[in-house]
Amino acid sequence: MRLRNIPGAEAALREYPTFVDSPLSYKGRWKERFGNDHPIHVEIGCGKGRFINTLAKRHPDTNFIAVELKAEVVLRALQRTEYETIPNLAFIQFDASKISELFADHEIARIYLNFSDPWPKARHAKRRLTYASFLNNYRQVLTQDGEIHMKTDNEKLFEFSLNQFAAERFQMKNITFDLHQSKLAEENVMTEYEERFSSRGQRIYRVEASCLIK
Amino acid sequence: MRLRNIPGAEAALREYPTFVDSPLSYKGRWKERFGNDHPIHVEIGCGKGRFINTLAKRHPDTNFIAVELKAEVVLRALQRTEYETIPNLAFIQFDASKISELFADHEIARIYLNFSDPWPKARHAKRRLTYASFLNNYRQVLTQDGEIHMKTDNEKLFEFSLNQFAAERFQMKNITFDLHQSKLAEENVMTEYEERFSSRGQRIYRVEASCLIK
Repeated sequence: MRLRNIPGAEAALREYPTFVDSPLSYKGRWKERFGNDHPIHVEIGCGKGRFINTLAKRHPDTNFIAVELKAEVVLRALQRTEYETIPNLAFIQFDASKISELFADHEIARIYLNFSDPWPKARHAKRRLTYASFLNNYRQVLTQDGEIHMKTDNEKLFEFSLNQFAAERFQMKNITFDLHQSKLAEENVMTEYEERFSSRGQRIYRVEASCLIK
Repeated sequence: MRLRNIPGAEAALREYPTFVDSPLSYKGRWKERFGNDHPIHVEIGCGKGRFINTLAKRHPDTNFIAVELKAEVVLRALQRTEYETIPNLAFIQFDASKISELFADHEIARIYLNFSDPWPKARHAKRRLTYASFLNNYRQVLTQDGEIHMKTDNEKLFEFSLNQFAAERFQMKNITFDLHQSKLAEENVMTEYEERFSSRGQRIYRVEASCLIK
Protein backbone atom coordinates (compact mmCIF):
# COMPACT_ATOMS: atom_id res chain seq x y z
CA MET A 1 0.00 0.00 0.00
CA ARG A 2 1.44 3.35 -0.98
CA LEU A 3 0.92 6.19 1.44
CA ARG A 4 2.46 9.61 1.62
CA ASN A 5 4.65 10.25 4.59
CA ILE A 6 2.61 11.55 7.49
CA PRO A 7 4.69 13.93 9.60
CA GLY A 8 4.74 12.80 13.19
CA ALA A 9 3.23 9.41 12.38
CA GLU A 10 5.54 7.58 14.74
CA ALA A 11 4.70 9.88 17.59
CA ALA A 12 0.99 9.64 16.84
CA LEU A 13 1.12 5.84 17.06
CA ARG A 14 1.95 6.01 20.73
CA GLU A 15 -1.44 7.52 21.47
CA TYR A 16 -3.15 4.26 20.64
CA PRO A 17 -3.53 1.68 23.42
CA THR A 18 -3.34 -1.24 20.96
CA PHE A 19 0.01 0.01 19.65
CA VAL A 20 3.07 -1.60 21.25
CA ASP A 21 5.87 0.94 21.37
CA SER A 22 8.78 -1.29 22.42
CA PRO A 23 7.92 -4.65 20.93
CA LEU A 24 11.38 -6.17 21.34
CA SER A 25 10.97 -5.99 25.11
CA TYR A 26 8.17 -8.54 24.86
CA LYS A 27 10.20 -11.21 23.09
CA GLY A 28 9.53 -14.48 24.90
CA ARG A 29 6.92 -12.95 27.17
CA TRP A 30 4.10 -11.82 24.91
CA LYS A 31 1.73 -13.70 27.18
CA GLU A 32 2.45 -11.03 29.79
CA ARG A 33 1.42 -8.31 27.36
CA PHE A 34 -1.91 -10.04 26.80
CA GLY A 35 -2.32 -11.26 30.37
CA ASN A 36 -3.02 -14.84 29.31
CA ASP A 37 -1.40 -17.75 27.51
CA HIS A 38 -3.77 -17.98 24.59
CA PRO A 39 -2.21 -18.86 21.24
CA ILE A 40 -0.74 -15.94 19.32
CA HIS A 41 -1.52 -15.34 15.64
CA VAL A 42 0.50 -12.80 13.70
CA GLU A 43 -0.41 -10.98 10.50
CA ILE A 44 2.57 -9.70 8.57
CA GLY A 45 1.52 -6.63 6.63
CA CYS A 46 -1.84 -5.58 8.03
CA GLY A 47 -2.87 -2.99 5.45
CA LYS A 48 -5.90 -1.08 6.75
CA GLY A 49 -6.32 -3.64 9.49
CA ARG A 50 -9.82 -4.95 8.86
CA PHE A 51 -8.73 -8.58 8.57
CA ILE A 52 -7.02 -8.74 11.93
CA ASN A 53 -9.62 -6.58 13.67
CA THR A 54 -12.36 -8.92 12.48
CA LEU A 55 -10.46 -12.02 13.54
CA ALA A 56 -9.64 -10.55 16.96
CA LYS A 57 -13.30 -9.82 17.65
CA ARG A 58 -14.39 -13.20 16.35
CA HIS A 59 -11.81 -15.18 18.34
CA PRO A 60 -11.45 -13.66 21.81
CA ASP A 61 -9.46 -16.70 22.98
CA THR A 62 -6.65 -16.03 20.51
CA ASN A 63 -4.22 -13.15 20.70
CA PHE A 64 -3.49 -11.26 17.50
CA ILE A 65 -0.50 -9.18 16.55
CA ALA A 66 -0.32 -7.08 13.39
CA VAL A 67 3.23 -6.47 12.19
CA GLU A 68 3.66 -3.68 9.68
CA LEU A 69 6.82 -2.02 8.43
CA LYS A 70 5.56 1.49 7.78
CA ALA A 71 4.44 3.84 10.54
CA GLU A 72 1.96 5.50 8.18
CA VAL A 73 0.24 2.20 7.46
CA VAL A 74 0.02 1.27 11.13
CA LEU A 75 -1.37 4.69 11.89
CA ARG A 76 -4.06 4.40 9.27
CA ALA A 77 -5.06 0.97 10.58
CA LEU A 78 -5.25 2.32 14.12
CA GLN A 79 -7.23 5.39 13.06
CA ARG A 80 -9.87 3.11 11.59
CA THR A 81 -10.38 1.42 14.93
CA GLU A 82 -11.09 4.86 16.45
CA TYR A 83 -9.30 4.24 19.71
CA GLU A 84 -11.32 1.08 20.13
CA THR A 85 -9.54 -1.19 22.56
CA ILE A 86 -9.57 -4.85 21.64
CA PRO A 87 -7.76 -6.62 24.48
CA ASN A 88 -6.48 -9.50 22.34
CA LEU A 89 -5.07 -7.31 19.57
CA ALA A 90 -1.75 -5.48 19.28
CA PHE A 91 -0.18 -3.43 16.48
CA ILE A 92 3.56 -3.27 15.93
CA GLN A 93 5.75 -1.27 13.59
CA PHE A 94 8.54 -3.68 12.70
CA ASP A 95 10.49 -5.25 9.87
CA ALA A 96 9.19 -8.81 9.33
CA SER A 97 12.57 -9.97 8.05
CA LYS A 98 13.73 -9.71 11.68
CA ILE A 99 10.79 -11.63 13.12
CA SER A 100 13.07 -13.83 15.19
CA GLU A 101 14.07 -10.73 17.19
CA LEU A 102 10.44 -10.17 18.02
CA PHE A 103 9.41 -13.63 19.17
CA ALA A 104 11.14 -16.41 21.06
CA ASP A 105 11.40 -19.84 19.46
CA HIS A 106 7.97 -21.42 19.04
CA GLU A 107 6.20 -18.48 20.69
CA ILE A 108 3.51 -18.03 18.04
CA ALA A 109 0.97 -20.42 16.57
CA ARG A 110 0.09 -18.92 13.21
CA ILE A 111 1.27 -16.41 10.64
CA TYR A 112 -1.02 -14.74 8.13
CA LEU A 113 0.43 -13.44 4.89
CA ASN A 114 -2.29 -11.53 3.07
CA PHE A 115 -1.64 -10.01 -0.34
CA SER A 116 2.03 -9.49 0.28
CA ASP A 117 4.07 -7.46 -2.16
CA PRO A 118 4.79 -9.83 -5.10
CA TRP A 119 8.15 -8.19 -5.91
CA PRO A 120 7.74 -9.34 -9.53
CA LYS A 121 11.33 -8.79 -10.67
CA ALA A 122 13.51 -11.89 -10.30
CA ARG A 123 16.29 -9.89 -8.68
CA HIS A 124 13.89 -8.95 -5.88
CA ALA A 125 12.82 -12.53 -5.14
CA LYS A 126 14.58 -12.46 -1.78
CA ARG A 127 12.24 -9.72 -0.62
CA ARG A 128 9.11 -11.85 -1.08
CA LEU A 129 7.65 -12.84 2.27
CA THR A 130 7.61 -16.50 1.23
CA TYR A 131 11.26 -16.61 0.18
CA ALA A 132 13.13 -19.51 1.80
CA SER A 133 14.96 -17.34 4.34
CA PHE A 134 11.66 -15.86 5.54
CA LEU A 135 10.10 -19.32 5.78
CA ASN A 136 12.93 -20.53 7.94
CA ASN A 137 12.57 -17.54 10.22
CA TYR A 138 8.85 -18.29 10.52
CA ARG A 139 9.62 -21.91 11.32
CA GLN A 140 11.83 -20.79 14.16
CA VAL A 141 9.18 -18.69 15.89
CA LEU A 142 6.20 -20.93 15.13
CA THR A 143 5.06 -23.76 17.37
CA GLN A 144 5.68 -27.27 16.09
CA ASP A 145 2.12 -27.54 14.80
CA GLY A 146 2.11 -23.89 13.75
CA GLU A 147 0.76 -22.83 10.39
CA ILE A 148 1.24 -20.17 7.77
CA HIS A 149 -1.93 -19.07 6.00
CA MET A 150 -1.17 -17.25 2.80
CA LYS A 151 -3.49 -15.65 0.29
CA THR A 152 -2.79 -13.53 -2.74
CA ASP A 153 -4.30 -12.37 -5.99
CA ASN A 154 -0.90 -12.66 -7.68
CA GLU A 155 -0.56 -15.96 -9.48
CA LYS A 156 3.19 -15.67 -9.95
CA LEU A 157 3.73 -15.04 -6.25
CA PHE A 158 1.49 -18.01 -5.48
CA GLU A 159 3.37 -20.33 -7.84
CA PHE A 160 6.66 -19.12 -6.35
CA SER A 161 5.36 -19.65 -2.82
CA LEU A 162 4.16 -23.20 -3.43
CA ASN A 163 7.62 -24.07 -4.69
CA GLN A 164 9.29 -22.41 -1.71
CA PHE A 165 7.02 -24.17 0.79
CA ALA A 166 7.68 -27.50 -0.93
CA ALA A 167 11.45 -26.97 -1.14
CA GLU A 168 11.64 -25.98 2.53
CA ARG A 169 9.66 -29.10 3.53
CA PHE A 170 6.54 -27.38 4.73
CA GLN A 171 3.44 -29.55 4.73
CA MET A 172 0.83 -27.88 2.54
CA LYS A 173 -2.93 -28.30 2.60
CA ASN A 174 -6.08 -26.60 1.36
CA ILE A 175 -4.34 -25.32 -1.75
CA THR A 176 -6.97 -23.40 -3.67
CA PHE A 177 -6.77 -21.44 -6.91
CA ASP A 178 -10.09 -19.69 -6.37
CA LEU A 179 -10.78 -19.11 -2.70
CA HIS A 180 -14.12 -17.38 -3.14
CA GLN A 181 -15.52 -20.31 -5.12
CA SER A 182 -14.10 -22.92 -2.75
CA LYS A 183 -15.40 -24.64 0.35
CA LEU A 184 -13.26 -22.23 2.40
CA ALA A 185 -15.16 -19.16 1.20
CA GLU A 186 -17.70 -19.18 4.01
CA GLU A 187 -15.22 -18.77 6.84
CA ASN A 188 -12.92 -16.46 4.89
CA VAL A 189 -12.39 -12.97 6.30
CA MET A 190 -11.69 -10.55 3.47
CA THR A 191 -9.14 -7.77 3.60
CA GLU A 192 -10.06 -4.41 2.14
CA TYR A 193 -7.79 -5.11 -0.82
CA GLU A 194 -9.32 -8.54 -1.33
CA GLU A 195 -12.85 -7.17 -1.41
CA ARG A 196 -11.95 -4.56 -3.97
CA PHE A 197 -10.08 -6.91 -6.28
CA SER A 198 -12.36 -9.91 -6.02
CA SER A 199 -15.36 -7.71 -6.79
CA ARG A 200 -13.67 -7.07 -10.16
CA GLY A 201 -13.50 -10.79 -10.82
CA GLN A 202 -9.89 -11.23 -9.74
CA ARG A 203 -9.36 -14.69 -8.29
CA ILE A 204 -7.75 -15.23 -4.92
CA TYR A 205 -5.21 -18.03 -4.35
CA ARG A 206 -4.67 -19.50 -0.91
CA VAL A 207 -2.58 -22.14 0.84
CA GLU A 208 -1.98 -23.34 4.39
CA ALA A 209 1.48 -24.62 5.28
CA SER A 210 2.54 -26.39 8.47
CA CYS A 211 6.00 -25.92 9.82
CA LEU A 212 7.02 -29.48 10.16
CA ILE A 213 6.42 -32.50 8.06
CA LYS A 214 4.43 -34.74 10.38
CA MET B 1 -9.40 -39.73 -26.24
CA ARG B 2 -12.65 -41.04 -27.75
CA LEU B 3 -12.30 -43.67 -30.42
CA ARG B 4 -14.87 -45.93 -31.99
CA ASN B 5 -14.44 -49.61 -31.35
CA ILE B 6 -12.17 -51.14 -33.90
CA PRO B 7 -13.16 -54.75 -34.55
CA GLY B 8 -10.23 -57.05 -34.01
CA ALA B 9 -8.13 -54.33 -32.36
CA GLU B 10 -6.82 -56.66 -29.69
CA ALA B 11 -5.75 -59.24 -32.24
CA ALA B 12 -4.16 -56.56 -34.42
CA LEU B 13 -2.03 -55.35 -31.49
CA ARG B 14 -0.15 -58.62 -31.42
CA GLU B 15 1.29 -57.91 -34.85
CA TYR B 16 3.42 -55.13 -33.44
CA PRO B 17 6.84 -56.04 -32.02
CA THR B 18 6.71 -53.20 -29.47
CA PHE B 19 3.40 -54.50 -28.10
CA VAL B 20 3.69 -56.75 -25.03
CA ASP B 21 0.92 -59.32 -25.12
CA SER B 22 1.26 -60.85 -21.67
CA PRO B 23 2.57 -58.00 -19.56
CA LEU B 24 1.82 -59.61 -16.19
CA SER B 25 4.39 -62.28 -16.96
CA TYR B 26 7.10 -59.61 -16.84
CA LYS B 27 6.32 -58.38 -13.34
CA GLY B 28 9.63 -58.16 -11.47
CA ARG B 29 11.65 -59.00 -14.59
CA TRP B 30 11.06 -56.22 -17.04
CA LYS B 31 14.82 -55.93 -17.37
CA GLU B 32 14.68 -59.29 -19.16
CA ARG B 33 12.16 -57.92 -21.63
CA PHE B 34 14.51 -55.05 -22.48
CA GLY B 35 17.71 -57.06 -22.15
CA ASN B 36 19.33 -54.54 -19.82
CA ASP B 37 18.87 -52.98 -16.40
CA HIS B 38 18.37 -49.41 -17.49
CA PRO B 39 15.83 -47.40 -15.50
CA ILE B 40 12.23 -47.84 -16.56
CA HIS B 41 9.92 -44.89 -17.17
CA VAL B 42 6.20 -45.46 -17.58
CA GLU B 43 3.61 -43.25 -19.22
CA ILE B 44 0.06 -43.89 -18.06
CA GLY B 45 -2.31 -43.02 -20.87
CA CYS B 46 -0.20 -42.64 -23.99
CA GLY B 47 -2.74 -41.13 -26.38
CA LYS B 48 -1.30 -41.17 -29.90
CA GLY B 49 2.10 -42.04 -28.50
CA ARG B 50 4.23 -39.20 -29.75
CA PHE B 51 5.44 -38.20 -26.29
CA ILE B 52 6.83 -41.58 -25.37
CA ASN B 53 8.15 -42.30 -28.86
CA THR B 54 10.09 -39.05 -28.76
CA LEU B 55 11.46 -39.73 -25.30
CA ALA B 56 12.46 -43.28 -26.21
CA LYS B 57 14.44 -42.08 -29.21
CA ARG B 58 16.00 -39.24 -27.24
CA HIS B 59 17.03 -41.41 -24.28
CA PRO B 60 18.27 -44.79 -25.51
CA ASP B 61 19.63 -45.58 -22.03
CA THR B 62 16.19 -45.50 -20.46
CA ASN B 63 13.45 -48.06 -21.06
CA PHE B 64 9.95 -46.74 -21.69
CA ILE B 65 6.62 -48.45 -21.21
CA ALA B 66 3.33 -46.94 -22.38
CA VAL B 67 0.33 -48.20 -20.42
CA GLU B 68 -3.05 -47.60 -22.01
CA LEU B 69 -6.44 -48.99 -21.04
CA LYS B 70 -8.09 -49.14 -24.44
CA ALA B 71 -6.96 -51.48 -27.21
CA GLU B 72 -8.09 -48.99 -29.86
CA VAL B 73 -5.87 -46.27 -28.44
CA VAL B 74 -2.86 -48.56 -28.22
CA LEU B 75 -3.47 -49.69 -31.78
CA ARG B 76 -3.60 -46.15 -33.08
CA ALA B 77 -0.35 -45.30 -31.27
CA LEU B 78 1.31 -48.38 -32.75
CA GLN B 79 0.01 -47.65 -36.23
CA ARG B 80 1.67 -44.26 -36.10
CA THR B 81 5.04 -45.87 -35.49
CA GLU B 82 4.57 -47.95 -38.68
CA TYR B 83 6.06 -51.14 -37.33
CA GLU B 84 9.11 -49.16 -36.32
CA THR B 85 11.00 -51.08 -33.70
CA ILE B 86 12.39 -48.99 -30.91
CA PRO B 87 14.24 -51.42 -28.65
CA ASN B 88 13.75 -49.43 -25.46
CA LEU B 89 10.00 -48.93 -25.89
CA ALA B 90 7.06 -51.20 -25.09
CA PHE B 91 3.30 -50.72 -25.33
CA ILE B 92 0.87 -52.39 -22.95
CA GLN B 93 -2.90 -52.56 -22.81
CA PHE B 94 -3.65 -52.51 -19.11
CA ASP B 95 -5.69 -50.83 -16.36
CA ALA B 96 -3.42 -48.41 -14.51
CA SER B 97 -5.40 -48.83 -11.29
CA LYS B 98 -3.80 -52.26 -11.08
CA ILE B 99 -0.26 -51.04 -11.70
CA SER B 100 1.08 -53.02 -8.75
CA GLU B 101 0.16 -56.23 -10.62
CA LEU B 102 2.33 -55.09 -13.48
CA PHE B 103 5.48 -54.09 -11.65
CA ALA B 104 7.32 -55.41 -8.62
CA ASP B 105 7.98 -53.06 -5.73
CA HIS B 106 10.40 -50.29 -6.74
CA GLU B 107 10.80 -51.68 -10.25
CA ILE B 108 10.27 -48.41 -12.10
CA ALA B 109 11.95 -45.02 -11.80
CA ARG B 110 9.42 -42.58 -13.19
CA ILE B 111 5.76 -42.23 -14.06
CA TYR B 112 4.43 -39.72 -16.57
CA LEU B 113 0.84 -38.55 -16.30
CA ASN B 114 0.06 -36.43 -19.33
CA PHE B 115 -3.33 -34.79 -19.73
CA SER B 116 -5.15 -37.44 -17.77
CA ASP B 117 -8.93 -37.47 -17.75
CA PRO B 118 -9.95 -34.76 -15.23
CA TRP B 119 -13.15 -36.57 -14.17
CA PRO B 120 -14.68 -33.21 -13.25
CA LYS B 121 -17.60 -34.51 -11.20
CA ALA B 122 -16.85 -34.79 -7.48
CA ARG B 123 -18.35 -38.27 -7.33
CA HIS B 124 -15.76 -39.44 -9.87
CA ALA B 125 -12.77 -38.06 -7.93
CA LYS B 126 -11.56 -41.57 -7.16
CA ARG B 127 -11.02 -42.21 -10.87
CA ARG B 128 -8.52 -39.36 -11.26
CA LEU B 129 -5.03 -40.72 -11.80
CA THR B 130 -3.70 -38.54 -8.96
CA TYR B 131 -6.26 -39.70 -6.40
CA ALA B 132 -4.61 -40.84 -3.16
CA SER B 133 -5.11 -44.55 -3.84
CA PHE B 134 -3.37 -44.22 -7.22
CA LEU B 135 -0.52 -42.26 -5.66
CA ASN B 136 0.06 -44.98 -3.09
CA ASN B 137 0.12 -47.61 -5.81
CA TYR B 138 2.67 -45.54 -7.69
CA ARG B 139 4.76 -45.18 -4.54
CA GLN B 140 4.84 -48.96 -4.22
CA VAL B 141 6.22 -49.61 -7.70
CA LEU B 142 8.51 -46.57 -7.89
CA THR B 143 12.12 -46.59 -6.71
CA GLN B 144 12.85 -44.65 -3.55
CA ASP B 145 14.03 -41.67 -5.54
CA GLY B 146 11.38 -42.23 -8.19
CA GLU B 147 9.34 -39.35 -9.55
CA ILE B 148 5.94 -38.64 -10.98
CA HIS B 149 5.87 -36.00 -13.71
CA MET B 150 2.39 -34.69 -14.29
CA LYS B 151 1.11 -32.14 -16.75
CA THR B 152 -2.40 -31.04 -17.59
CA ASP B 153 -4.35 -28.21 -19.14
CA ASN B 154 -7.09 -28.69 -16.54
CA GLU B 155 -6.64 -26.27 -13.67
CA LYS B 156 -9.09 -28.06 -11.39
CA LEU B 157 -7.30 -31.37 -11.87
CA PHE B 158 -4.01 -29.63 -11.17
CA GLU B 159 -5.30 -28.00 -7.97
CA PHE B 160 -6.72 -31.36 -6.88
CA SER B 161 -3.45 -33.11 -7.67
CA LEU B 162 -1.27 -30.67 -5.73
CA ASN B 163 -3.46 -31.28 -2.69
CA GLN B 164 -3.29 -35.04 -3.14
CA PHE B 165 0.48 -35.03 -3.54
CA ALA B 166 0.82 -32.85 -0.43
CA ALA B 167 -1.59 -34.94 1.65
CA GLU B 168 0.16 -38.17 0.67
CA ARG B 169 3.55 -36.69 1.62
CA PHE B 170 5.06 -36.54 -1.82
CA GLN B 171 7.86 -34.04 -2.22
CA MET B 172 6.92 -31.61 -4.97
CA LYS B 173 9.17 -29.45 -7.09
CA ASN B 174 9.12 -27.44 -10.30
CA ILE B 175 5.48 -26.53 -9.83
CA THR B 176 4.57 -24.37 -12.81
CA PHE B 177 1.29 -22.77 -13.84
CA ASP B 178 2.45 -22.04 -17.38
CA LEU B 179 4.89 -24.65 -18.62
CA HIS B 180 5.43 -23.15 -22.06
CA GLN B 181 6.47 -19.80 -20.57
CA SER B 182 8.67 -21.38 -17.93
CA LYS B 183 12.33 -22.36 -17.75
CA LEU B 184 11.23 -25.96 -18.37
CA ALA B 185 9.79 -25.19 -21.81
CA GLU B 186 12.98 -25.91 -23.71
CA GLU B 187 13.30 -29.55 -22.67
CA ASN B 188 9.54 -30.18 -22.74
CA VAL B 189 8.29 -32.84 -25.15
CA MET B 190 4.77 -32.00 -26.26
CA THR B 191 1.99 -34.52 -26.68
CA GLU B 192 -0.31 -34.20 -29.68
CA TYR B 193 -3.06 -32.95 -27.37
CA GLU B 194 -0.72 -30.45 -25.76
CA GLU B 195 0.35 -28.98 -29.08
CA ARG B 196 -3.22 -28.53 -30.22
CA PHE B 197 -4.44 -26.94 -27.01
CA SER B 198 -1.44 -24.77 -26.26
CA SER B 199 -1.55 -23.39 -29.80
CA ARG B 200 -4.99 -22.01 -28.87
CA GLY B 201 -3.50 -20.19 -25.90
CA GLN B 202 -4.44 -22.81 -23.31
CA ARG B 203 -1.91 -22.88 -20.49
CA ILE B 204 -0.25 -26.07 -19.35
CA TYR B 205 0.29 -26.83 -15.65
CA ARG B 206 3.03 -29.15 -14.50
CA VAL B 207 4.51 -30.62 -11.33
CA GLU B 208 7.16 -33.17 -10.37
CA ALA B 209 6.60 -35.24 -7.24
CA SER B 210 9.06 -37.55 -5.53
CA CYS B 211 7.88 -40.61 -3.73
CA LEU B 212 9.53 -40.11 -0.45
CA ILE B 213 10.10 -37.06 1.61
CA LYS B 214 13.86 -36.87 1.79
